[in-house]
Amino acid sequence: MSNKPNLYTSLSPALLHLYDINNSIVVVIDVLRATSTIVTALNNGARSVIPVDSISKCMEIGKQIMGVTAGERDGQIAEGLEYGNSPFEYPKEFIEGKTLVLTTTNGTRLLHMALDKGAKEIVVGSFPNLSAICDHLIEMKKDVMLACAAWKDRVNIEDTLFAGAVINRIKDHFTINCDSSHMAEKMYEKGKKDLFAFMKANDASHYHRLMGFGLEKDIRYCLTADGANVLPLYKEGKLVLK
Amino acid sequence: MSNKPNLYTSLSPALLHLYDINNSIVVVIDVLRATSTIVTALNNGARSVIPVDSISKCMEIGKQIMGVTAGERDGQIAEGLEYGNSPFEYPKEFIEGKTLVLTTTNGTRLLHMALDKGAKEIVVGSFPNLSAICDHLIEMKKDVMLACAAWKDRVNIEDTLFAGAVINRIKDHFTINCDSSHMAEKMYEKGKKDLFAFMKANDASHYHRLMGFGLEKDIRYCLTADGANVLPLYKEGKLVLK
Repeated sequence: MSNKPNLYTSLSPALLHLYDINNSIVVVIDVLRATSTIVTALNNGARSVIPVDSISKCMEIGKQIMGVTAGERDGQIAEGLEYGNSPFEYPKEFIEGKTLVLTTTNGTRLLHMALDKGAKEIVVGSFPNLSAICDHLIEMKKDVMLACAAWKDRVNIEDTLFAGAVINRIKDHFTINCDSSHMAEKMYEKGKKDLFAFMKANDASHYHRLMGFGLEKDIRYCLTADGANVLPLYKEGKLVLK
Repeated sequence: MSNKPNLYTSLSPALLHLYDINNSIVVVIDVLRATSTIVTALNNGARSVIPVDSISKCMEIGKQIMGVTAGERDGQIAEGLEYGNSPFEYPKEFIEGKTLVLTTTNGTRLLHMALDKGAKEIVVGSFPNLSAICDHLIEMKKDVMLACAAWKDRVNIEDTLFAGAVINRIKDHFTINCDSSHMAEKMYEKGKKDLFAFMKANDASHYHRLMGFGLEKDIRYCLTADGANVLPLYKEGKLVLK
């Protein structure tokens, strides 16, 4: 056996309980679009991003701290909030120095699950910060859990692709005894030439959903590596840059 | 929208609760080796196979009905039982006319979950009966759930490959709005030329486990289509041929 740290992939929050993540770095993955948007806002100078799981909590905290409130339900900005889930809503001119209070369902719940299970560290992963994530994981030499947020616990293609992209880059540094990880990498290899085309060709449910809202630009950005190459870390209720 | 029935894939028993299978045909998939062995025993003339979830229940029922008791724990025939999990233990000369009482952990539990959730019909799928399964699903024109037994709820490559093989053959007859299904088919397409080599190249955990027990022959058989092309159906506690 090697002394390399272990790497696992959980394809859905409903599978996370199968793994001991007590001593692990957990990468929360919600490619379309929560984690891509968080990474982008922080890269553009947001002071922090506070992930919350409900619209009411978003409004409450937003008021308390004079933050920017954001979140969508069914592709529309949720009633009572100011902004949506698109990374393009958070350019430097707007978000710099501000705190973003973002309500997401799948991603926030997963983050809290990882906290409850005693994760050593929680970071936020998306294609826009792929290299930052990979560099960090290699450097830390700790066990890793790539935790896909999925969609209402159903496995999705884009989060799995991102897990595969990470594995593809860092696998030599880890022991990977995990079929989900190998499956994710295999799929990424198959799709990496053109992830947008891969999503389309494979009838990804979120591809259809977001295209239906006219969000091709968002999908393309969220599938492109290193557009906002920073490392958001969860600290005392907030996501901040390392 | 089309009028085709829906097809879903559940990559782990821990994901089955996400789907309404009330009106569905559930295909229980435990490629290495439970469902392959069940199909083989029935093809070789076993009267029925009774799947049970514990060794004690296996012994008890085996005694009551004078059945052949079988099951393994950690690659060994379980203490108190007579035979193991290998399809090669059940040739016609031995099993014809007999009832096999088989204890499997992942597969049996999944079958009972499907029952509890009100599945319309439960059939047993494996590469040895791939064509029989596909023909049946096309003919029935009902919603389908391809339910992978996985390994202690962790997603595995071989069950996913089988789901992909089924989808690859029957997809034109179904509406498939399910990323897991598309992922499974994509992986099958990638591996179909040589599934054994694919398992090896992708470091499948069961490949290693069974090779460690000297069971290459079992793996090869369990990855080969139509070696025992019959359709086992669950009826009143037993698996019997349709």
